[in-house]
Formats: sequence, structure tokens, C-alpha cells
Amino acid sequence: METILILGGYGFLGSNVIDYAGRYLGGQYNFIVFDFYINHPLQAQFSNVIKTYKGDFTNQEDVRVIFEENKIDYIFHFISTTVPSTSNNNIIYDIESNLVPTIHLLDLAHQYDIKNVVYISSGGAIYGAASKYVHKEEDPLHPISSYGIVKMSIEKYLKLYNHLHGINYLALRLSNPYGAYHLSEKQGLINVALKKALKQEQFEVWGDGTNIKDYIYAEDFAKIIFRLLEKKVENKVINVGSGKGYSINELLEIVKGLVPSFQIKYQDVKSFDVPKVILDTSEMAGFIDFELLDIESGINKTYKWIQEQQPD
Amino acid sequence: METILILGGYGFLGSNVIDYAGRYLGGQYNFIVFDFYINHPLQAQFSNVIKTYKGDFTNQEDVRVIFEENKIDYIFHFISTTVPSTSNNNIIYDIESNLVPTIHLLDLAHQYDIKNVVYISSGGAIYGAASKYVHKEEDPLHPISSYGIVKMSIEKYLKLYNHLHGINYLALRLSNPYGAYHLSEKQGLINVALKKALKQEQFEVWGDGTNIKDYIYAEDFAKIIFRLLEKKVENKVINVGSGKGYSINELLEIVKGLVPSFQIKYQDVKSFDVPKVILDTSEMAGFIDFELLDIESGINKTYKWIQEQQPD
Repeated sequence: METILILGGYGFLGSNVIDYAGRYLGGQYNFIVFDFYINHPLQAQFSNVIKTYKGDFTNQEDVRVIFEENKIDYIFHFISTTVPSTSNNNIIYDIESNLVPTIHLLDLAHQYDIKNVVYISSGGAIYGAASKYVHKEEDPLHPISSYGIVKMSIEKYLKLYNHLHGINYLALRLSNPYGAYHLSEKQGLINVALKKALKQEQFEVWGDGTNIKDYIYAEDFAKIIFRLLEKKVENKVINVGSGKGYSINELLEIVKGLVPSFQIKYQDVKSFDVPKVILDTSEMAGFIDFELLDIESGINKTYKWIQEQQPD
Repeated sequence: METILILGGYGFLGSNVIDYAGRYLGGQYNFIVFDFYINHPLQAQFSNVIKTYKGDFTNQEDVRVIFEENKIDYIFHFISTTVPSTSNNNIIYDIESNLVPTIHLLDLAHQYDIKNVVYISSGGAIYGAASKYVHKEEDPLHPISSYGIVKMSIEKYLKLYNHLHGINYLALRLSNPYGAYHLSEKQGLINVALKKALKQEQFEVWGDGTNIKDYIYAEDFAKIIFRLLEKKVENKVINVGSGKGYSINELLEIVKGLVPSFQIKYQDVKSFDVPKVILDTSEMAGFIDFELLDIESGINKTYKWIQEQQPD
């Protein structure tokens, strides 16, 4: 039995990882959750969470106490205090609340001799305004948000801590995840559209809906992490996505197939999005032995999950 | 007449820039110097310095007051509070004293509508442990020190502030400068070796002296900056070096040619240096119209300058 400290464990991706491990990897992993929000409506169902720490990632002592009180095998660092669209509004805050506490975290890992860190980087914000749209891990990075610059810097520091102190890392450049446990009303196009469709509310698209991105079902993401751990894949930056691109309009068509009354309104607003981003996932594909869920089935399953969460 | 705010203006490179402008570009540029060390023995000779502010770069108010009291056309940001070899010892300090105050500086530039920033990045630390040794600007970056990671991050933020606020930047990835006004006893191989030679002191080499680097005469660096400004080169990251590589042993041979009694001691210490780094300077070469000083003449002129500084 190995113990994973998961920072941001009750968030969207954290919940998927804990849920997946509990369902399919019974007895292999226990979780210690560190989160600022600990009243997650679903957390009680995670029997593989052995301890929960409520704390502020920017408060060193809140984090240190966990290392003091527990034997930890893996750190999963899933916290981000900003999102790409808002990170440029307060760049100092982005640095002070993400980059600096991550260095403190790595210093704690070194001090308490924890050798494995899994970090969620970004498959969208980090490549940024590049001249091509299918991105390989070794491509030059052109982030156009502080969010992307901070993620890029953290990747470089992970590499440095490996070089200096032998801490192994996996930095996963994740595409756009959707699926169960998603609670945000602002981020996550597929989930937000499905919720609006279910509530019979109009969905607003900024721009003309032709922007193309790479999407991944969150449970697949969880599955991939544990496959990488099992195969001892270490000290790599890996694109994690579907390798396929869908336009916003294509996704909304699928939603409309589920909820024919779904109303879409196009807003003539300049989008700051990169028009087309697809991840080259050939590196990832070399390590996994299963097919990712197709987008229609993923959206379908997500819709069912959202329906089940609705109060009667 | 344009006014340049030069941060770190009384340091080695700052002094070269001010001196060069005073000597060869008379009447074109005035300087406002911001520095922590203002008792530089040579500063009195710079008649083109119109004001000096003593301050701490990490203290926002120390910097803000300069913008409040002056009309500034260009910012030359030459401050670094760390060096590559020590930056890994306190990474939080590196971030808090270099990255964070640089963001504050860019915010001030935005607030006071200053549209031009020249930043000294690194031609050595930023490319890092790459598989090849001649580096072009668009090459992937593999910094192996916090110093290099912070410089890389600042380059990305310069690009972001251009994108967001139209602040033009030049990020100069400088190779290893040597020449007049160099006062450090620790950094700068050529200058330190020449000083030791003059004082008849033994010079210690870490390793076997086969490491190859790119060196540039500091006055050439100053000349290049003003050529780039004249040609309105903007929003670029540019390698600034000689494009030639010299081993430590080759340099020490030149010093021995000047001071035949020069004593070298090789220390069997593992060097953390990258074994060979040369800058591809073809981008830079497209903007300048003069030949850089050859290494023998540069070392010769540096030696004469050091001799002249010696107290009688």
C-alpha cells in the first residue's frame, strides 16, 4: 500500500484520480488530501482517503505539517490558484501563489526524502502562440498568459530538482479535461454546456465556435497517471490528451444530440484563445495499452453523471 | 536627447554602456542610474549621468519614485541579484529578488507609459544542458540553474507585456563579457585571471581547463546595444556574443603571453559548467556593421585598463 499526498485532491481532477484508484486499483493506494475547499459534496464517498488537511497552499506551515505527520510515497500536485484567462490580471499573485509555494513543496520533498512528484502542467497554455497547431513535447514554448509561463517555469524547476536532489517527476501537459466531478460554472466548455442544456439555459459562445482544441475524458486522465506510475515512467514531460481536435461547434452539436432544445448564442467577442491546439500524444501512447474513450461516449457519460447529481 | 533609466548602472556592464554612450554618442543619451552600490570608484567620471538613485530592487517604492520624478524613454534592466553557481542555494530568494521585482518594473513601465525595455538575459545559463553546443535563439531551453530558469521566465514575461500592453523589449542573451569596469573577484574568468597575473597571485582552475565558452568584450556589448536601438530592433530575443569558442586553457595562454610569470593551478573539482557553449550570432550580425574585437586584442586592452586602475 502506497500513500499519495494529493494537493487539490477534492478538485475536479483530484476527485477523478481518487475515485479511479478506489474503484479499479483497490488496496494499492491510499490518499492524503490537501485542499482549501474541503466541503466537497462528494468527498465522503472516497473510502481510500485516509486523512484530509484543510489548508492554504501559500502558507508553508499548512503544507509542512503534512510531511511531519505522515509517510508519503508520492506527491500529486494538482493545485492551480489561477486560470489562463485571469492570470494576466495579477501576475505577482500568480507567481506568489503558484510558483513560490511549489518551490517550497519541492524543498519539503527534498527535506523529507520523497522521491516522486506528479505535476499537472498545461497542454494548451504552454505551447501558446506557435506557428503550428500539433504540439510535440520538445517544441519551443510561446505561452501568452502568466498561467502558461508559471507552468513552464515549474516544469523547469522539476527538472532542476531532479538534477540537484534526485527527486523524480512527471509533468503532464494536459489538454482540456471534461467528465464527472466537474463543478466549475466558468471553466470547462463541455461540462458547462451540458449543465446549461440540462437546466434549459442558453449557452454563450465567445467568437464563432470554430476554435479547435484537444479534449480528454477525466477518468482516462486518471487511468493514464496510474499506468505511467506502474510502468515507472519518470523524469518526463508528457502530453496527455486525445491527440484529436474538435471545434466548439462540433462539441455543441453532440450536446444538441442529447438535448435537442439546447440553445446557443454566439457573442461577437474577440477570443484570446489560440485558434487551434492539438497535442501530439505519441509519447504517451507508447506507455498505455488501452483506447481512450471517444468524444461522443465521453460527453454521453458526463451528461449522465450530471443528471445523477441534480437534486430531485 | 533621450533618457535611459539604467538599473544596475554602476555595475560592470552598466558602466561600460554609460562610458560608451558618453564617449561616442555625445548628446544623444542621458542616464539615470539606479543601483544598490553607489560608491563606485569610477562613477564620478560619467558626466552623462544626470541623477543617481540608491535603492533596493526588491523594494517597490525605491523603484516607483524614479518613475514619479522623471521622464524616461528607455529602461535598461541590468540587475541580477544572483549568479548561476549560487542561485540554486536559495531558489525562493532568486525568484523573489529577480523575477518578482522585474514584474513590478514592467507594471511601472506600463503605468508610466514607457515603451522600451532592454534586458540582459543569459547566453550560457539559459540553453543549459542541450545536446548540441552552438545555440540559436529558437532552440529549446534546458537551464540547469535557477538563474537560468528565472532569466527564461523574464524573457517570456517581456513577450507577454508586449502582447498585453505594447511594451517593446530587447532581451539580449549575453555570452561571457570581459573588459574595463569589471570589479568582481569571483565572476569573470578573463578579468580575474588578469588581476591575479598582475598581482603575481596563483590562478585556480576548477577542472582541466578544457571547457569552451563564448566571450565578448564589454565595450563591444555596449556598442551593439546602441546599434540595435538606432536600428529600432524591437521585440526580439537576440544572442550577443562573439560566435567563437575558446577553452579556459587558450585564454590562460593569452594571459601568460602578457605575464610570463603567471601561475596556474588545476583543481580536481567537478565542474557544474556545461562543457561547451557557443552562441550562434547570425541574428545579431544582421543588425551591426562592425567587426567585434578579437580575443587577443580584447584581453590586451583589458590588461591595460586593469594596470591603469592599480594604485601607484
